[in-house]
Amino acid sequence: MSPKEPYEVRPVGWVRSRLARRLDAPKQGHEGAPHARVEVLPEFAAGLGGLSVGQDVLLLTWLHEAERAALEVHPRDDPGRPLAGVFSTRSADRPNPVGLHRVRLLAIVEGRWLHVSGLEAIDGTPVIDIKPVLVGA
Amino acid sequence: MSPKEPYEVRPVGWVRSRLARRLDAPKQGHEGAPHARVEVLPEFAAGLGGLSVGQDVLLLTWLHEAERAALEVHPRDDPGRPLAGVFSTRSADRPNPVGLHRVRLLAIVEGRWLHVSGLEAIDGTPVIDIKPVLVGA
Repeated sequence: MSPKEPYEVRPVGWVRSRLARRLDAPKQGHEGAPHARVEVLPEFAAGLGGLSVGQDVLLLTWLHEAERAALEVHPRDDPGRPLAGVFSTRSADRPNPVGLHRVRLLAIVEGRWLHVSGLEAIDGTPVIDIKPVLVGA
Repeated sequence: MSPKEPYEVRPVGWVRSRLARRLDAPKQGHEGAPHARVEVLPEFAAGLGGLSVGQDVLLLTWLHEAERAALEVHPRDDPGRPLAGVFSTRSADRPNPVGLHRVRLLAIVEGRWLHVSGLEAIDGTPVIDIKPVLVGA
């Protein structure tokens, strides 16, 4: 019934940030996250054609430090909040820990370094996809 | 330098839709895509707690029929449009074919069937994550 699985995700680049530890990272990019860079691997640089400085993009990351067995979490890691199903939260802890980050492209350097606004992912986080923002999604 | 890779993505559910073939699917959910259901696997149903009928969620899918070697595509499969890097498009063809779909939750049945509005993914598409919509992302 299923196409062959599991599916393999391979990084197309890496987050380069001064955020070194998950504990240091804000919960969301608009909560004081620093500017950061995305280093796209040379073999994927051709995929960046058509992106423009100033536009917003969605970065999809693989939150490699996440707890994949978690199905319920305290939202925002606040033990005072009641447990909620992970799919009703943006917790990194979830079965497939894909992070979704809306950022603005501030610069594109040497064809494969993206300078981006407020990104809450830590240094070394794998980037697995980049998508333009569409109206409504 | 990298956490161990590749990473393995496992379906948490499946799209159930009358869209049977990729050719039949609209490019975006707001372009006439039908209502559909998401069958969440029993072992992940606990992750749905806290979701409410009427709210918008993001479905992340694995577009299993995609061409993963593609780095440039004609946007919207229109050969009249110049080639663009896949990361500047929403093409399914991309190195990690994660689909991102904003839908509205119309019903939650038996604790693990999600009835959702306009979804352009075809029947049998693996669902890998569900996230609440946040302001701005």
